[in-house]
Amino acid sequence: MQDIYDHIEQHLDESIETLLQLVRQPSVSAQRLGFDKAPELVKSKLEEVGLQAEIWPTPNDGLPSVFASASGESDRTLLFYTHYDVQPPEPLELWESAPFEPERRGDRIYGRGISDDKGNIAARLAAIRAFQDVRGGLPSNLKFFAEGEEEIGSVNLPGLVVERADELSADACIWEGGGRNASGDPLIYLGLKGLLYIELSSKKLSGDAHSSFATILPSAPWRLLEALHTLRESDGLVLIPGFYDDVRETTVEERDAIAALPDEADIWAETFGNAYFNNELTGAALRHRLLMEPTCNIDGIWGGYQGPGTKTVLPAEVTAKLDFRLVPEQRPDDILEKLRRHLDSNGFSDIEIEKLGGVNPSRTSMTSPWAKLIAETCVEIYGRQPVIQPSMAGTGPMYDFADVLGMPVATSGIDHPSHKIHAPNENITLDDFLMGAKHAALVMQRFAERGAT
Amino acid sequence: MQDIYDHIEQHLDESIETLLQLVRQPSVSAQRLGFDKAPELVKSKLEEVGLQAEIWPTPNDGLPSVFASASGESDRTLLFYTHYDVQPPEPLELWESAPFEPERRGDRIYGRGISDDKGNIAARLAAIRAFQDVRGGLPSNLKFFAEGEEEIGSVNLPGLVVERADELSADACIWEGGGRNASGDPLIYLGLKGLLYIELSSKKLSGDAHSSFATILPSAPWRLLEALHTLRESDGLVLIPGFYDDVRETTVEERDAIAALPDEADIWAETFGNAYFNNELTGAALRHRLLMEPTCNIDGIWGGYQGPGTKTVLPAEVTAKLDFRLVPEQRPDDILEKLRRHLDSNGFSDIEIEKLGGVNPSRTSMTSPWAKLIAETCVEIYGRQPVIQPSMAGTGPMYDFADVLGMPVATSGIDHPSHKIHAPNENITLDDFLMGAKHAALVMQRFAERGAT
Repeated sequence: MQDIYDHIEQHLDESIETLLQLVRQPSVSAQRLGFDKAPELVKSKLEEVGLQAEIWPTPNDGLPSVFASASGESDRTLLFYTHYDVQPPEPLELWESAPFEPERRGDRIYGRGISDDKGNIAARLAAIRAFQDVRGGLPSNLKFFAEGEEEIGSVNLPGLVVERADELSADACIWEGGGRNASGDPLIYLGLKGLLYIELSSKKLSGDAHSSFATILPSAPWRLLEALHTLRESDGLVLIPGFYDDVRETTVEERDAIAALPDEADIWAETFGNAYFNNELTGAALRHRLLMEPTCNIDGIWGGYQGPGTKTVLPAEVTAKLDFRLVPEQRPDDILEKLRRHLDSNGFSDIEIEKLGGVNPSRTSMTSPWAKLIAETCVEIYGRQPVIQPSMAGTGPMYDFADVLGMPVATSGIDHPSHKIHAPNENITLDDFLMGAKHAALVMQRFAERGAT
Repeated sequence: MQDIYDHIEQHLDESIETLLQLVRQPSVSAQRLGFDKAPELVKSKLEEVGLQAEIWPTPNDGLPSVFASASGESDRTLLFYTHYDVQPPEPLELWESAPFEPERRGDRIYGRGISDDKGNIAARLAAIRAFQDVRGGLPSNLKFFAEGEEEIGSVNLPGLVVERADELSADACIWEGGGRNASGDPLIYLGLKGLLYIELSSKKLSGDAHSSFATILPSAPWRLLEALHTLRESDGLVLIPGFYDDVRETTVEERDAIAALPDEADIWAETFGNAYFNNELTGAALRHRLLMEPTCNIDGIWGGYQGPGTKTVLPAEVTAKLDFRLVPEQRPDDILEKLRRHLDSNGFSDIEIEKLGGVNPSRTSMTSPWAKLIAETCVEIYGRQPVIQPSMAGTGPMYDFADVLGMPVATSGIDHPSHKIHAPNENITLDDFLMGAKHAALVMQRFAERGAT
């Protein structure tokens, strides 16, 4: 592989120039900003490394995806999942340089999306180009998918994946989001949580009443609070009957992997102002809760008078936004049904539920050949044993590839906790980029040789 | 009294002109609008009917009060309580004529404050003037107090009353707020509820966290909800230990009075969109709950994400505004202490309480000579037995006069439910004004003759 690694190093400046071009083109999905040009730019960059690229419209008038592919020496097919949309750059005043005018300062380059996820796109392009230039072709068939709506919850991806099942099918998938952790250990993720996002609301009056009527008129806030109170124990346990029925037991390998993860509890606690942890959890139990267990969270709640001073009002209605993070094999629509049934059977049929989003959870097995292949390639590139997380704490559309299309999924990438993704002054180092590109190249090679099964 | 009544009728145009002058001068306390001129105007109108008037500054840089007095034939002293500040006129687009340019349409005159409470001021001025013109003086000593902050909760009145105790002392007090009900029966109120207004808040993190951390980080919304849930049964019963300790038992006379009140349940239910009543209360039990019982009400609640769609966030903090309507002899500071103790002893010492307002409740006895005198004068003026409410459902600073200064308090006025007080198109009829003025005059006469004890 030294020939490939040398090419990647020798052409680093050009690869970074490609990355800067991608960053200079805004593509803020939440604001639908830059999508007149961004898909074309991504397509042209995929074509520059010899792939056949096309722009895919997305169901429900969603923001387009870009898909590219090429044949290679082996019959096996590898799929790269990435996304070219980025988080909004706001608050702008906290950026030290303009978010869409990338700037190099010290050993870092700053710009929105330069790590998440345009850095991964550019690193994989560098690996592909190395194979094309040095070996005259790719080691296996390759598919490259760049989503345009990842930062707004991939709402239209499940539909697109079903529609494009044939074109997206592959033997294995490399996700975004891998790289190194704070200690410099390579980091692999094998899963993502699912999500059910709802609004719960109570409406009791046609309009706000003077609060002197609170003695005799029904109160929407009290009513919603009583309903919410039936959902969760103070220790976090969800009280909806059947909520945990489909939670898959943690395997021995998953448990061992979680035990082996570095203890970052102090960093988390400090980040949120010396916060404590629920149930005084520590160590592996804390990490298990974070990565492997579902929740019921209140994202927001509002109703009635919220201004300064006093206003005596009985609010006509009140609303709360809730998310349930789900783990295999929970399903958002099943949880929604169980929630409705629970509220009804507790006399809360007057509480309205609106579903705002649903994502299925997914995990690729720790013992799968694909997980092992990625772990071994990490040792080769980074010179250390990787840290393997059976799942991230967050949510993403991994299910659609891993379960709907049926391929093992693992991460490889350029990430590092210092990159400030989603925050002002997002950045990467050249070293992170180089290592990520080399790892992508090695994964391509080993996959071609050994496959994922 | 016919001479007095004749004078009031003959000078109705002039009395209404005085009222219109008062209405044309804005005095919106919530917006501190018009207070450069309004106190002077009120003072000049009090002087025009032969009273000695002065403008009183109010503690804490509050909006000024106007005070006036005159000696009369009897040694007894009667106090009129009124207020010259008005509610904000907004929403302006719902007014059919400009709120501060009073306009006559049909048998009504429209303008902000024309009923509440400038109509009462002008009606009492008409009664005073009649005595001065016809009899050459007042039947008893008179004090006339016009507050400038009633519509913003009389926040500085308790301090002012203590400061001006000597000047405000009297043998009996006529409050604002009386008149006739929807059936045309004269209506007397003998009390007002008290109030404790607080903010309860929970803060758990230094900043909002991604909701994937909700598994392990403490949740401010869940925490506040759990604390709130300990405060109140779903039937409205307040669960703070000792909350009801000082609630005075309803007397036989109060109970009879409440039983005799007209049943307005259908009107209330319709006003709020066919709302039902708590505990399926009806009739006297419903009215007893409304007028004689305390509450714990959520005026507003907010925290976290409140925008459209989904944002997965664990909110750092959440706040609720609560009011407790209190009845004799509950005290806001005592309830505040009991609330703090209750939260602490249930493990919620992390929940913060901020007191935003406190008013003591007050009721004048149904069997007091003053209540009887007012009832008898109603029969004389209106030709019907009055409806007597032992208390209003709302809150006002009656305690400071009735209990601090120690005088019986009852209402007399120009009110009618059709006046739309606090709402667009506030109005009065000339008949309401005339009857209110005559009743004020008769009360002055009977008080001079019989006193209030």
